[in-house]
Amino acid sequence: MKKIFSVLVENRSGVLSKVSGLFARRSYNIDTLTVGETNDKTISHMTICSSGSKWEMEQIEKQLNKKLDVIKVRTFEEQNAILKEIILVKIKYTAANRGEILEICQLTKAEIVDSNKDYMIIYLCAEPDKTTGLLDMLGKFNITEVCRTGTLAMSKCSLGE
Amino acid sequence: MKKIFSVLVENRSGVLSKVSGLFARRSYNIDTLTVGETNDKTISHMTICSSGSKWEMEQIEKQLNKKLDVIKVRTFEEQNAILKEIILVKIKYTAANRGEILEICQLTKAEIVDSNKDYMIIYLCAEPDKTTGLLDMLGKFNITEVCRTGTLAMSKCSLGE
Repeated sequence: MKKIFSVLVENRSGVLSKVSGLFARRSYNIDTLTVGETNDKTISHMTICSSGSKWEMEQIEKQLNKKLDVIKVRTFEEQNAILKEIILVKIKYTAANRGEILEICQLTKAEIVDSNKDYMIIYLCAEPDKTTGLLDMLGKFNITEVCRTGTLAMSKCSLGE
Repeated sequence: MKKIFSVLVENRSGVLSKVSGLFARRSYNIDTLTVGETNDKTISHMTICSSGSKWEMEQIEKQLNKKLDVIKVRTFEEQNAILKEIILVKIKYTAANRGEILEICQLTKAEIVDSNKDYMIIYLCAEPDKTTGLLDMLGKFNITEVCRTGTLAMSKCSLGE
């Protein structure tokens, strides 16, 4: 099963290392992870997407809750969350394939955010299945670099605070 | 100084822990960090934003390059990169302040991606100074949750591959 962990932590040097160490020591898989600031400078927010058995996911939640620097852990599944991810793809294009790449951007609502005579950078911010879909469609071109944020998730309003 | 590290690593359990441990042991600061997949399943990409003295930034780069699981490290400064960040802000609104919140969204091109009778979720994907600006403008309302990806960065096309 896939699970999303939304974790509030103290904004201190070493916290990320402790949290990621918890996953590493037990060989639990981190699919994606983002850490950013919140509206309180002393608190950071992590979104961690992980996959494994139901038992493993429960263990992760328990272990996270035991960490001193962890303030709050919430878990939810994909269907109960607003999910967003950024992808940036740098492509070495030619005059021959430029048109086709632009058509794919139009189809997927991706944007060209930078370009020169050889390269272009394609940008999309959307649900993770759409960013993955864009990457699949661009797979046949000469991709020189791909950056993704990983999934950012917030529980829907219907779940309350 | 602020520096952006764009790091390609082996997609293996424990790599994030090693990289973040490197920062923690030396008390180097991680402002934001994102880890996501690339177009090669065996390779992940990290964007790490850090700040400190020029000497510290050089040490980080050297230490990163020494790690076995690190394939490639590139550093660049903000002005040479395409920068993007997602922010999601959940607000408990009232009939009295709803209009003002919507006006701020219009001004900043933020979108409402979910809502019910008490809460709304505001979404923006933009340069990090714009997401910070939005959060400042929303600071006077009853914010119940903030999630940010942290900065995603890709070197501009003018810098080559």
